[in-house]
Amino acid sequence: MKFCSNCAQPVAVRVPDGDHLPRYVCDACGMVHYQNPKLVVGCVPEADDGRILLCKRAIEPRLGYWTVPAGFMENGETTQDGARRESWEEALARVEISSLLAVVHVLHADQVHVMFRARLLDGQFGVGAESLEVKLCSEAEIPWADIAFRSVDFALRRYLEDRGHGVEQHHFTTIDFRKPQEHHR
Amino acid sequence: MKFCSNCAQPVAVRVPDGDHLPRYVCDACGMVHYQNPKLVVGCVPEADDGRILLCKRAIEPRLGYWTVPAGFMENGETTQDGARRESWEEALARVEISSLLAVVHVLHADQVHVMFRARLLDGQFGVGAESLEVKLCSEAEIPWADIAFRSVDFALRRYLEDRGHGVEQHHFTTIDFRKPQEHHR
Repeated sequence: MKFCSNCAQPVAVRVPDGDHLPRYVCDACGMVHYQNPKLVVGCVPEADDGRILLCKRAIEPRLGYWTVPAGFMENGETTQDGARRESWEEALARVEISSLLAVVHVLHADQVHVMFRARLLDGQFGVGAESLEVKLCSEAEIPWADIAFRSVDFALRRYLEDRGHGVEQHHFTTIDFRKPQEHHR
Repeated sequence: MKFCSNCAQPVAVRVPDGDHLPRYVCDACGMVHYQNPKLVVGCVPEADDGRILLCKRAIEPRLGYWTVPAGFMENGETTQDGARRESWEEALARVEISSLLAVVHVLHADQVHVMFRARLLDGQFGVGAESLEVKLCSEAEIPWADIAFRSVDFALRRYLEDRGHGVEQHHFTTIDFRKPQEHHR
């Protein structure tokens, strides 16, 4: 952020009065432009035969790697709405969202990923605009070495573990790629 | 948003190529400015005697009404970190965050409220800068008519219900103040 989106004057970075963190502040109109984490919502869709729907990404980041349907939550929708919408957009799949699976704090990206369990309805799917390929994978067929994101790897592993134990828990975790760099200081 | 925060030129509202929703777009530098829901994180802190810590708001919105510690999640923290930070800022209370209590989609405000159960450590608390008064309430003492937000009312009710049943579930709900207005069209 270089300019105030309200009045077009340059913004400064400083701690506003009564605050405790540096913000983008406009000294011309007085507006404070807060930056907050973004929500990414998605799901692990399971077909009636137990296989899981995966999508090969057609866009950066991680083009060519595999993911479950997930993307930025939009204003005006619930987290479940968003996961359902992403399943349609990325995999032309109608899904029924069920229990909460994972909440992943991705600190280096200022994102919170919220993943649900889901059931693939009517067994139909296709290749959405943001995908190169979409397929159903048995547990043994999951391409672990080519999963696009750590949060997706986490969600898939917890999903399969819980399914193996006949439970549906939710799991919190934190991923922070800033940490290894700090070791080199 | 009136001006591009990258180049200070006026922004337009239109559906970008390959997208499906109207966005703030800068035709000068090409940047698309997405607007996404913000996370509010908080907790219901319980003291060793079972009473719950409530704060009377010193700031708008809902100045003078009662809430649990909660506020906008910051970049670089987890949802639990944020709930812990807000407890300190609003009630000078050190808390131990425990299980997930509620996820409330506040559609008219483009917010997702995430509430946890928490334990008030060492029994100490005080009046933070954003509070007029902070106190411990038994179940019978909760000022239900003067609770600041529907999401807080929801979280408190589910908290007490679950405690009564000896369980710790999590609860999703959606609040949408846009809906009644639609009926008047």
